[in-house]
Amino acid sequence: MNLRVPDELDIIARIARAVPSHTSPVLPLTIGDDAALLRPPRGKQWVLTCDAFVENVHFLARVHPAEAVGYKALARAVSDLAAMGATPRVFLLTLGLPADRTGAWLNRFLRGLARAARAFDLVLAGGDTFRSTAVFVSVTAIGDIVGGYAVKRSGARPGDRIYLSGIAGAAELGLQLILRGLARSRSWKTLLRPHLFPVPRLKLGSWLAKHRLASAMLDTSDGLSTDLDRLCRASGTGARIFAALLPAVKVPGELRRRGFDPLQLALHGAEDYELLFTVPRKRVHKLPARFGGVPLTCIGEITEPPQLLLVGENGAVQPLQPAGWDHFRSKPAQTRKPGSLP
Amino acid sequence: MNLRVPDELDIIARIARAVPSHTSPVLPLTIGDDAALLRPPRGKQWVLTCDAFVENVHFLARVHPAEAVGYKALARAVSDLAAMGATPRVFLLTLGLPADRTGAWLNRFLRGLARAARAFDLVLAGGDTFRSTAVFVSVTAIGDIVGGYAVKRSGARPGDRIYLSGIAGAAELGLQLILRGLARSRSWKTLLRPHLFPVPRLKLGSWLAKHRLASAMLDTSDGLSTDLDRLCRASGTGARIFAALLPAVKVPGELRRRGFDPLQLALHGAEDYELLFTVPRKRVHKLPARFGGVPLTCIGEITEPPQLLLVGENGAVQPLQPAGWDHFRSKPAQTRKPGSLP
Repeated sequence: MNLRVPDELDIIARIARAVPSHTSPVLPLTIGDDAALLRPPRGKQWVLTCDAFVENVHFLARVHPAEAVGYKALARAVSDLAAMGATPRVFLLTLGLPADRTGAWLNRFLRGLARAARAFDLVLAGGDTFRSTAVFVSVTAIGDIVGGYAVKRSGARPGDRIYLSGIAGAAELGLQLILRGLARSRSWKTLLRPHLFPVPRLKLGSWLAKHRLASAMLDTSDGLSTDLDRLCRASGTGARIFAALLPAVKVPGELRRRGFDPLQLALHGAEDYELLFTVPRKRVHKLPARFGGVPLTCIGEITEPPQLLLVGENGAVQPLQPAGWDHFRSKPAQTRKPGSLP
Repeated sequence: MNLRVPDELDIIARIARAVPSHTSPVLPLTIGDDAALLRPPRGKQWVLTCDAFVENVHFLARVHPAEAVGYKALARAVSDLAAMGATPRVFLLTLGLPADRTGAWLNRFLRGLARAARAFDLVLAGGDTFRSTAVFVSVTAIGDIVGGYAVKRSGARPGDRIYLSGIAGAAELGLQLILRGLARSRSWKTLLRPHLFPVPRLKLGSWLAKHRLASAMLDTSDGLSTDLDRLCRASGTGARIFAALLPAVKVPGELRRRGFDPLQLALHGAEDYELLFTVPRKRVHKLPARFGGVPLTCIGEITEPPQLLLVGENGAVQPLQPAGWDHFRSKPAQTRKPGSLP
């Protein structure tokens, strides 16, 4: 139990000790001033993104370990940099904490945040802390890329092949196991990892950008169907994807019998943070089957008519509804029915 | 009443329509992609800051107009850029909204945000939206400055004169009138303005930086006593300030009789967003008495012993306790006793 609530300077000092925050040629000033200074490397553009991670909206303190909350708050933002092909450099942290989370919980949170900062090579450049009634985290992540090489969402053209990295639906399977109270079973523990500690595809994103292989790219944060819809809307195209080609998560027989369906998880499951990208047909041969151990799978193609179509395993074609996560249409996480997809 | 909750794309589209978000040489891509791209002007450094503005922590929806919430969310962050001497360029918006605030409230909020964006010449570069149980805003503001000219908190030296722009305690007076239910009186309406629509001192900050007049600088967001303490800690110095010199807010007689004390407001009142800066003695003659209509007042001097001292109007010297706002020591806004300083 915390008998004493630490003050703001104490919390900032603990953050500075726990998370990498040293100066560098890019970052000439450490945290604690009014604002951070960034010195851009010659010929580069900065790439910026911000991402909120809020208790009872994006995570549940009751079921999500503090270390995973800290890790994921940064990993989610970094994944947006990967989706542009950028290399992460620094981040800003906005952190709201209830008084009873300023002790051991904060230490575990910071351990997870520091682990992500080291894994993805980012340094803390500044931030804002305040007291709140629930945990509130917002991360601004900043990377750089050679001018003109960033991959947008809007570059897909009819005929381009659609690729997905890694496995689809694995994060949603982990979330559902936690929400259904099945997370304690030892045999299913490894199934939680993609949900708790997703790995942004930084090297793949920057390789695709550098070699100008991807005509459009985003990360699958809200579910393949919803994210593909966004890519197609931005590009003014449609898409046809094939159920038989989807690299769907492997679901153990016992969980299938409980109603977990690999195809539904792969199509609509949120938070995989894999890269969804399109490749002009003539450049497809330059793409390896795996990149750094991560499979790259062709799942369909971009079409001119602006619809999303799903070709079933039996060859039947049906419209694909974007049924992933929409923050204003969907219920917040804590009110989702266990087992229902978001 | 809202019968329909708009979806995420609808909310993003309304933000994009309401707030300046056009491309420019600095910002080659509009909002809606995974991340924003920034192309730095040659020879400049980027200056970055983030600032949260949260319902029931930083404002109360019951008493604060939505337009002031939108305006102030951005003005607060911009003030941190002013305190470095930087020129604002773009901002990122993290916005969490309850379903019943996505209609008229959001429109008024966006009107205030757009007003601030135009007044301070910033363009929206990206952001993140989600549904939450209370309004949550976090702004990342980005400016630039010629390399090597940013003014840090840590540069004050013994003998430097301490200056404050504008009026001290005016924002706290406005807040207290609102919290005590005195805001409806027409004669006191103008007293609310510094609290609801504070003006960051951008031109002054950039002028002081350009002419290397300020050895250290920050903005008074948490109260003069607390912010002076931060400047002195960062610089490894102390300070002596004079009650008789403080440009304290003018309090009408009737409000003085109700217990509003100009000196206490000036010393500890939060959220003025004025600039507190130090000037080497030899350069003081270069400083005008007013800058763009805003008075610049010498209120004391930096000392070697690391204490804060207040010289009273009668000449008596006493220690000055940092008694402004600390987010973890103080109670959140809604639980402050009316009339008590934060």
